[in-house]
Amino acid sequence: MERNKNIAKLREGYLFPEINRRKRKFLENNPNAKIISLGIGNTTEPLKKHITKALVEASTDLGTVEGYSGYGDEQGLTALRDRIAEKLYGGIVSGEEVFTSDGAKCDIGRLQVMFGNDVSVAVQDPSYPVYVDGSVIIGATGEFDDSKKQFGKMTYLPCTPENGFFPDLERCKKTDVIYFCSPNNPTGAVSTKKQLKELIDCARDNKSIIVYDAAYAEYITDKKLPKTIFEIEGARDVALEVNSFSKPLGFTGVRLGWTVVPNELTYDGGEKVIDDWNRVTCTIFNGASNIVQKAALSALDDAGLDEMRKTVGFYMENAAIIRKTLKDVGVEVYGGDNAPYIWARFPGRKSWDVFEEILETANVVTTPGSGFGPAGEGFLRFSSFGHRKDIIEACERLEKNLG
Amino acid sequence: MERNKNIAKLREGYLFPEINRRKRKFLENNPNAKIISLGIGNTTEPLKKHITKALVEASTDLGTVEGYSGYGDEQGLTALRDRIAEKLYGGIVSGEEVFTSDGAKCDIGRLQVMFGNDVSVAVQDPSYPVYVDGSVIIGATGEFDDSKKQFGKMTYLPCTPENGFFPDLERCKKTDVIYFCSPNNPTGAVSTKKQLKELIDCARDNKSIIVYDAAYAEYITDKKLPKTIFEIEGARDVALEVNSFSKPLGFTGVRLGWTVVPNELTYDGGEKVIDDWNRVTCTIFNGASNIVQKAALSALDDAGLDEMRKTVGFYMENAAIIRKTLKDVGVEVYGGDNAPYIWARFPGRKSWDVFEEILETANVVTTPGSGFGPAGEGFLRFSSFGHRKDIIEACERLEKNLG
Repeated sequence: MERNKNIAKLREGYLFPEINRRKRKFLENNPNAKIISLGIGNTTEPLKKHITKALVEASTDLGTVEGYSGYGDEQGLTALRDRIAEKLYGGIVSGEEVFTSDGAKCDIGRLQVMFGNDVSVAVQDPSYPVYVDGSVIIGATGEFDDSKKQFGKMTYLPCTPENGFFPDLERCKKTDVIYFCSPNNPTGAVSTKKQLKELIDCARDNKSIIVYDAAYAEYITDKKLPKTIFEIEGARDVALEVNSFSKPLGFTGVRLGWTVVPNELTYDGGEKVIDDWNRVTCTIFNGASNIVQKAALSALDDAGLDEMRKTVGFYMENAAIIRKTLKDVGVEVYGGDNAPYIWARFPGRKSWDVFEEILETANVVTTPGSGFGPAGEGFLRFSSFGHRKDIIEACERLEKNLG
Repeated sequence: MERNKNIAKLREGYLFPEINRRKRKFLENNPNAKIISLGIGNTTEPLKKHITKALVEASTDLGTVEGYSGYGDEQGLTALRDRIAEKLYGGIVSGEEVFTSDGAKCDIGRLQVMFGNDVSVAVQDPSYPVYVDGSVIIGATGEFDDSKKQFGKMTYLPCTPENGFFPDLERCKKTDVIYFCSPNNPTGAVSTKKQLKELIDCARDNKSIIVYDAAYAEYITDKKLPKTIFEIEGARDVALEVNSFSKPLGFTGVRLGWTVVPNELTYDGGEKVIDDWNRVTCTIFNGASNIVQKAALSALDDAGLDEMRKTVGFYMENAAIIRKTLKDVGVEVYGGDNAPYIWARFPGRKSWDVFEEILETANVVTTPGSGFGPAGEGFLRFSSFGHRKDIIEACERLEKNLG
């Protein structure tokens, strides 16, 4: 049989494996280097007591006749779906609209399966690579244009300091699916309610569906900023939302995410999106781990929510340290106040060159902005996920080498 | 935007949710009925001590600085991949060829994404619904033909008592992807080494790729029968294999599966399938839960393997009880000796009718054979996953009502 021609369109490796490859290569040549990673947004702090206890209990229960459970509903544990709706959405979505899963990245892959290959797609530029690469794999894009660093048929919406990281929506007027991430990975920008209203109005006028990625919502400290698109009027008609416990709870390895599909969301012919999502979920997914789902319930009681705030608070202190360090040495920085990412500009330079330089001189791993799309060229993303001593040491090295 | 036209091709609900719907409806009308389920292959026995302890330890570790882990490799924990290769494949595949995941069903969905929509597909008939429904969703089939109960463009390979449940391979000579499940779900049939050699030769001659589903391999008691397709010469050139801890270890809710993609497996142009699988895995998957992967390591040490044998042995005793009961009342039965499923024939009757009758009279849930494909019409699948007392009571009721 022949290879899937869509996979052949992809460029190089997926961003983070490529960073790891370069890191390993550097370590081969410099075996004594003490590398600190501010690259991939990988949580580093141990789980807190209440949630660890819940995982232990859920594991222990599986060894008992009363506590054992096999297959659950593919859509997730009813109690967890209800509690997410109540505690994280204040009841503006219902539990039946929440589908729990093994993570936002995996849900995005399944959403792309649901939408199919016969759709046009818009992404913020820069953006989380899965929106683009997953769309390429499913066949929703054309070939890669090396001069533009863009895939054909895909609409790129530049988000830069010049437009306050909010795109010109005129550009996506004929797009079926719009991926939109706020707080943004990688820029750390957070859209205001007014901006999201514009986005929603645009989607409604053009019959687009917004895939709103709120994986960093818990990092919003400014109470005026929306934590979910469903706070905004009209969102239920045009948007679905993916989210995750990875970043607020340190569940990057534990795996739990969810997708909210409102009942009102329909295709042009009036077919409900939630019905198709349910069907795709039942067919090619089998539910998140029962251990993890049972424990996640505890993450949403009072003690759990308190731990979540502390976890987020810790990483946000890291973000402030990195942000200050970069600012102090004269780097132009964005983000880091309502998001765990700091987006730093290095005018006139290539991202991978600055990445290599910082790896060589400071032994700090970052993420090259160009890996997130052509408008990310000249930027680096600094992640605030790290032990405090590592963050401080990385910042000392950055101060010395960039200062 | 318009609905994905491929999803519109699907029939009714996915089989098992439909069974649950009918069961719930029956319970609404008969609230005092004590239903016993021999329907979905859902494990019922608590996890054994060694594996429960490993899950508890892995959970506890996440609460410590030394034991915490965030994102792992999407492909899985190296130690686990190596141990699966060693303990379950006796070293005939390498750890690098094993990709661990959240389950075989989910891997099949990702394999369908990898193959894309521009492929022709063959399935055994009857077969596990995910091969068919997942292929429909991805766009690899035509419309459903209601008279044939088949999707267009898809090749159905009848497996019946008349051909010893091994298909006529002449029928799939022009097919790109062949799904093949042994021990078979739902028929319980196990292919011999000689039969698999024929299948492999057919795939090699026609440049097809075999997706071999070995999720029930541990249920093989006859030592002459192959537990993996890689025992057969030539398999590495034409086959990949999906597998799971769900059934041998009771991990249906815990979630751990894997896919083996041999280095030698290529597309017509010589491109390695393992490279594309790696890319798809990295892009739309994020690894199985670290808790589960760490515990799975313990399932493959001596104590763990002993527990696995005991779990399998228990369910196989159930299978023998069900098989004998059905035989004693004169039902024509297949499977159940090297597989946890018993495939029972009810000549001249419709599967759903017999399903409803047994639900009404014996209050036992089964799975209608027609739900697995047109050649399953007139059959029911009995699953041997259940508490012993329930199996015995179900058999007493079946004896009374079918006898």
